[in-house]
Amino acid sequence: MVDSKDNGRLLYAGRYLQLVERDDWELVSRRHRVAVLVAWTPADEILLVEQFRIPVASRTIELPAGLVGDQPGSEQEALLDAAGRELEEETGWRAGRLERLMDCPSSAGLTDEIAMFVRASELERVGQGGGDATEDIVVHAVPRREIDDWLAARYEQGFAIDPKIFAALYWSRTGQAGD
Amino acid sequence: MVDSKDNGRLLYAGRYLQLVERDDWELVSRRHRVAVLVAWTPADEILLVEQFRIPVASRTIELPAGLVGDQPGSEQEALLDAAGRELEEETGWRAGRLERLMDCPSSAGLTDEIAMFVRASELERVGQGGGDATEDIVVHAVPRREIDDWLAARYEQGFAIDPKIFAALYWSRTGQAGD
Repeated sequence: MVDSKDNGRLLYAGRYLQLVERDDWELVSRRHRVAVLVAWTPADEILLVEQFRIPVASRTIELPAGLVGDQPGSEQEALLDAAGRELEEETGWRAGRLERLMDCPSSAGLTDEIAMFVRASELERVGQGGGDATEDIVVHAVPRREIDDWLAARYEQGFAIDPKIFAALYWSRTGQAGD
Repeated sequence: MVDSKDNGRLLYAGRYLQLVERDDWELVSRRHRVAVLVAWTPADEILLVEQFRIPVASRTIELPAGLVGDQPGSEQEALLDAAGRELEEETGWRAGRLERLMDCPSSAGLTDEIAMFVRASELERVGQGGGDATEDIVVHAVPRREIDDWLAARYEQGFAIDPKIFAALYWSRTGQAGD
């Protein structure tokens, strides 16, 4: 977010995004960080969400995710709470435990957007999910042993597959996430 | 890229990026796609690049990558050739074989940017790499058995780690990439 001359020259301020020039480099700035949930159910299924995404003009398969505050004063706990609310809203699953895994840039040459990966565990189904009134989200709980074929089939059908899903799957194999 | 009214309303056109509003959603459009190289050396090392990235204001560890043409008429072969040139320029390794793995959105809620993952194999070292005159790139060839610890150490040191690296590592385990 541009808040001083040191952060560059504001080219255009949209409602949600800012186009900024900094050190002769154009970038997009966003006011929030994105919490990205790595959530395995007790039956060893990974939770994924399907929705139409306007920027890529297609239906996508992604990890559950949502914008969370990035104001000074947003404490670790508040960020995790917000991530848990996003998970429940999108998927209908509530997490007994939320842990920060890793903060990663979405596209380091393009934007200051940071994906905050959060491991959600001790999951309990409490609703249907589907997102808020403005969202049209389909929830998928995909068993671990089927995930590679499942994603390959969706890709063949023309869905856009978020590569962060594969990061989550890698961590589940190295023991960094996934019960 | 915005080229008709159907693609939305252009809010601002920078030199490289366009801010667009489409169906009441703000997004960033870019004229090129990004080729992202998954490259394992004959010694079973994965090639990574380190550089300072202005948007995230920190040094990053990423897969080798570069912008390639996305004009109508850019053929598959031309895209792969461009990806191979980027690999050689950044890392000093030339690929005998280049195969398209998967096209994935960088951040489907934010931008139309597509990361075109390319598997580079039959590698031969032909130079030092380091990028072009405007770039300051450090090349790392990290053995497979050390990669998890190596990345964890860099993360601890404050480097931003591109999550697409973990996707590449996952594919190397499922046999989709990595010799």
